Amino acid sequence: MLPYTTLITFDKAAGTSVYLQISTSLVRNIRSGLLQPGTRLPGTRELARQLGVHRKTVIAAYNDLYAQNWITVAPRKGFTVAGSLPELKPQPWKRPVKELHQASMPVPFNSVINSGVLTYEPGKTPPRLVIDDGFPDPRLAPLPLLLREYRSRLANQYAPRQASGTLAAGSIALREALSGYLYNTRGIRTGLPGVLVTHGAQMSIFLAASLLVKPGDLVVVGEPGYPVASYSFAQLGAKILKVPVDEHGMDTDALAEACRNARPKLVYVIPHHHHPTTVTLSPQRRMHLLELAATCNFAIIEDDYDYDFHYTSSPYLPLASSDHGGRVVYIGSFAKSLAASVRIGFMVAAPDFVEQASRLRRMIELRGDTLMEDALATLITNGDLGRYLRKANKICRERRDHLCGLLDSRLKEVVSYEKPAGGMAVWLRFQPAFPLKTIAGIAATRGLHMSSGALFDTPRHQYNAMRFGFASLSPWETEDAINIITSAVQSLPLSP
Amino acid sequence: MLPYTTLITFDKAAGTSVYLQISTSLVRNIRSGLLQPGTRLPGTRELARQLGVHRKTVIAAYNDLYAQNWITVAPRKGFTVAGSLPELKPQPWKRPVKELHQASMPVPFNSVINSGVLTYEPGKTPPRLVIDDGFPDPRLAPLPLLLREYRSRLANQYAPRQASGTLAAGSIALREALSGYLYNTRGIRTGLPGVLVTHGAQMSIFLAASLLVKPGDLVVVGEPGYPVASYSFAQLGAKILKVPVDEHGMDTDALAEACRNARPKLVYVIPHHHHPTTVTLSPQRRMHLLELAATCNFAIIEDDYDYDFHYTSSPYLPLASSDHGGRVVYIGSFAKSLAASVRIGFMVAAPDFVEQASRLRRMIELRGDTLMEDALATLITNGDLGRYLRKANKICRERRDHLCGLLDSRLKEVVSYEKPAGGMAVWLRFQPAFPLKTIAGIAATRGLHMSSGALFDTPRHQYNAMRFGFASLSPWETEDAINIITSAVQSLPLSP
Repeated sequence: MLPYTTLITFDKAAGTSVYLQISTSLVRNIRSGLLQPGTRLPGTRELARQLGVHRKTVIAAYNDLYAQNWITVAPRKGFTVAGSLPELKPQPWKRPVKELHQASMPVPFNSVINSGVLTYEPGKTPPRLVIDDGFPDPRLAPLPLLLREYRSRLANQYAPRQASGTLAAGSIALREALSGYLYNTRGIRTGLPGVLVTHGAQMSIFLAASLLVKPGDLVVVGEPGYPVASYSFAQLGAKILKVPVDEHGMDTDALAEACRNARPKLVYVIPHHHHPTTVTLSPQRRMHLLELAATCNFAIIEDDYDYDFHYTSSPYLPLASSDHGGRVVYIGSFAKSLAASVRIGFMVAAPDFVEQASRLRRMIELRGDTLMEDALATLITNGDLGRYLRKANKICRERRDHLCGLLDSRLKEVVSYEKPAGGMAVWLRFQPAFPLKTIAGIAATRGLHMSSGALFDTPRHQYNAMRFGFASLSPWETEDAINIITSAVQSLPLSP
Repeated sequence: MLPYTTLITFDKAAGTSVYLQISTSLVRNIRSGLLQPGTRLPGTRELARQLGVHRKTVIAAYNDLYAQNWITVAPRKGFTVAGSLPELKPQPWKRPVKELHQASMPVPFNSVINSGVLTYEPGKTPPRLVIDDGFPDPRLAPLPLLLREYRSRLANQYAPRQASGTLAAGSIALREALSGYLYNTRGIRTGLPGVLVTHGAQMSIFLAASLLVKPGDLVVVGEPGYPVASYSFAQLGAKILKVPVDEHGMDTDALAEACRNARPKLVYVIPHHHHPTTVTLSPQRRMHLLELAATCNFAIIEDDYDYDFHYTSSPYLPLASSDHGGRVVYIGSFAKSLAASVRIGFMVAAPDFVEQASRLRRMIELRGDTLMEDALATLITNGDLGRYLRKANKICRERRDHLCGLLDSRLKEVVSYEKPAGGMAVWLRFQPAFPLKTIAGIAATRGLHMSSGALFDTPRHQYNAMRFGFASLSPWETEDAINIITSAVQSLPLSP
């Protein structure tokens, strides 16, 4: 008999189950050759006695080893180390491997518009605190409820009941729930065939623009505007025309003027809390925009990601709820209304457009996580989402007011801003004497990651401004961030 | 005092907490006008007494109402229905809404290659049983473990510690775990900068092809081949050249011949268990393919989605593990090795290529679910994934053998096939006398969804064949499916 008490080590206080520790020990001994193929293992009673564990623990370990093909079981002969060990070593078929990650691609590849992806620097400590550009606080979101629904679907799941081809447009349950939800909250009348589920607002933008834009087409965006959307349009070969955004949103008179000289194919608009400046498109301009769309025959992508968050004024009904004759593609995302980790967004458009977009989505990613989509549908229909949004609106308003109070008391001579009527960020303009890039650089050394504002700068405009996302920070964290910014400002040669 | 016992209804046996039922009842009464703004509500002790519940339950209900702005609290005055009710009704700004989903898009949009998306037919009963084309069984996958990791991250999560710009390439933890995992299982030497996390194999294909292919470029695929990949290439404007696939994989002599007349930019190859025919690319052809890549200067997308599942022979090391000088983009997916609902895949390539691909990914979907990616990283590093794969290989082999046994005994004169050495599907060729489209049509009326094989057909080839995914079906379900196919065959006018 081999000295199993020595061969097998385990620690009842460890995080891993004892049976797994026993089976792992035995695998190690088989691998090392101490336990040769054909070796008979002790019976479960005997080994349990030797190791001082319950017999069921040994049975579980043996079951595990058997399932992994490490041992065989024969009636009356008991447990034996398997003759042919289960480790299929890959067959080499050529010279030994070589470092790959130094190799550069020898084939020329198409370059992508610089979209500001930060490269990970190994060894760099992650920041203690991050000011995002306006995301909800996952600690407040009903993610446990969402996950409970998800789990129950995993547990009850039989063989997939839906042919995967129908799922490229998203789960049927979620498309149905969304069509009701969008009517109740936004007055958008649509049905299941008019709703596409996507992997977030950005994918909705990409899919819609891919269908609408050919290389050389003109796409209108606001200035300042949301850079990642513009990158997508440029990547698809569009020419970008920037129209000024003032305190009432995109300047539709300037757009009308531009339409006299050119033929835009698509206008991208963020009607509530424009990114980055948080202004709302006025009703007059909404009407003007729709008239221009009909006159000049362009399509509109209405990115209404912030609709669910309003504190001081009511939201306006979307362009998509009006009589737009199918020109408007309406998009939104639960990454914004629930938590950034919920990668589910949507698009509402004419059914033939949605069908084309779902074909395209299939080429890009086959489909999404339909179980998670089903789980989200339940949160919409049982009212959990609405309940959460009420609470979140209250808390976000408090956080906005708290941030604005701190800005007024601590950074009055450094920044200016308009208190936003909704959304999750304040558009914070630094006075020219206080260069944001320098301040962000100093803040980084003190554990705070904040935008340097470079994302919004263009060759013509240097905004020296950033979006301060207040929704994801607790009051304590906001104070922490403001302290760091204040101390960074004070360490400048010319502080106020 | 209002008759609160009548106004408030609840059921202790219901699934919802009593406090939520109480708060929902009160909201209903406020909404209906029974409880007017300014109405004083009873104290918590008093209401608890009237309703016969614990006082803490009433406190919870009032807290909920307060958080949602339905009631106000004043010292000594107690609880009052709020004066300004929290429901922000959207402000209309134009004519009443009109049915949107009848509208067709008035602006012409780009059409997408037909990628075989099935349209959902409302009212149609979902099939009782689905034969997929080769997906794992989610009932066997360690999804509860994955979800446990995910939950613990949700619970512990503070403000996001990583700047979102670094996350377009995927979670740092998963990229690190993958670079180790790919070396241990496949001999691929890479590091974090050479690994991109994606939303599945299809997204890896789309990203790589977008970078490699310009409109008019020539892309080589196998015939028969994986149609969705070809759709993507065609959608990107590529010309598709089909090279025959025989029992040793893609015919590299035919490819060499083709290279004499044309200059392919990219070759798409599935080296293990080619889709659809399940053949493995032989070592000789692997070497030949790499030589051709160097001579003719093309890139290779190596789609090795099935590497983790081998039953009778060992896998070959991937092309990407060889000295390929950076020509090979290697891709795989956990949708295939864990469960279709796990929408996480990867791409391994030269770091500059990965950086470009992550920029492009950002335009398409910003980023994935980093919490889920982190959770998966833990399953890789703690060995749960490897443990599961061993068990799954054993069960999948049993399911393959079970299916093949049934095919031999029940459908010998109807179908022919080669037993696959690995993977999750059998390529099932129906004899010409038994048209698969007809059989699939009959099966559909009996609750079984199976492929009609049309996906693989081209104008030149009608395969009358389908992939029978055996991995996701229990033995009982496989028998059920074979029974339905057998009865469908027997109901044909000329059955065997």
